[in-house]
Amino acid sequence: MADEALFQFLHNEVIQYVYKSAENGEMENGRCVSKLEHLGFRVGQGLIERFTKDTSRFKDELDVMKFICKDYWTSVFKKQIDNLRTNHQGIYVLQDNKFRLLTQLSSGKQYLEHAPKYLAFACGLVRGGLSNLGVRSIVTAEVSVMPACDIRIMIKQVN
Amino acid sequence: MADEALFQFLHNEVIQYVYKSAENGEMENGRCVSKLEHLGFRVGQGLIERFTKDTSRFKDELDVMKFICKDYWTSVFKKQIDNLRTNHQGIYVLQDNKFRLLTQLSSGKQYLEHAPKYLAFACGLVRGGLSNLGVRSIVTAEVSVMPACDIRIMIKQVN
Repeated sequence: MADEALFQFLHNEVIQYVYKSAENGEMENGRCVSKLEHLGFRVGQGLIERFTKDTSRFKDELDVMKFICKDYWTSVFKKQIDNLRTNHQGIYVLQDNKFRLLTQLSSGKQYLEHAPKYLAFACGLVRGGLSNLGVRSIVTAEVSVMPACDIRIMIKQVN
Repeated sequence: MADEALFQFLHNEVIQYVYKSAENGEMENGRCVSKLEHLGFRVGQGLIERFTKDTSRFKDELDVMKFICKDYWTSVFKKQIDNLRTNHQGIYVLQDNKFRLLTQLSSGKQYLEHAPKYLAFACGLVRGGLSNLGVRSIVTAEVSVMPACDIRIMIKQVN
């Protein structure tokens, strides 16, 4: 419990901090999301190294993705991804019906515009994790109804 | 385990982030420690509210301090404070012989100069926690031998 709260409070404060820097003119507003995403990326790189140190080698991309949906997501967000879809051409959509970092916000439409702030770090976590498993990707997130969210992963093909 | 790693990685990245802002000239170097301390303060305010919601009322200042040394410290840093000293005139020194946020650094003298970065957030956590328990204070930290640290709390007397 304690560590969960600790992470959530720190995460919230980091968001406030980054957006405050933008307000003070120390940074453009548009860079806030990418800054948060980058923080997530670095944390994700570290976490995945630790989480996979005893797992066997992954068979393929889908196997990696299943690991992200189950083990990785559960470790970080206390529940599995509810639904994983793919077009088998490098696009994956991970659906979380009750995303931990959004449950603290009201589920009305009122705060929907603030959702991206709370998703940027998570997108980075996924991208960083995948990156250290050798999968380069672009990760975005979308919220239509709080606190559900879709994480969309587009694999960058290495030629 | 996961949440602990998550917090530690995020904490490290936040430190990097804040110091990088300073390097880029977006902020003076001297403000980094106070920024980190402020982040800790806000997180501490949140945490203490959650941790104390079922505890009985504190008898006095020393009782508050014992709570910080035992329950609060254990929740956040996974161990109790090893030694609590006081001059009974508003100064308390909390000694942690193996401070969690320093154990990741080498215990040699080489990185001693970097210790303050890793202590600022913790000082804020203590000040924020105390503040929401009605105790205004100044909190500083000192490291002589890694990974031990002394947290020094000076109570501000309300006249």
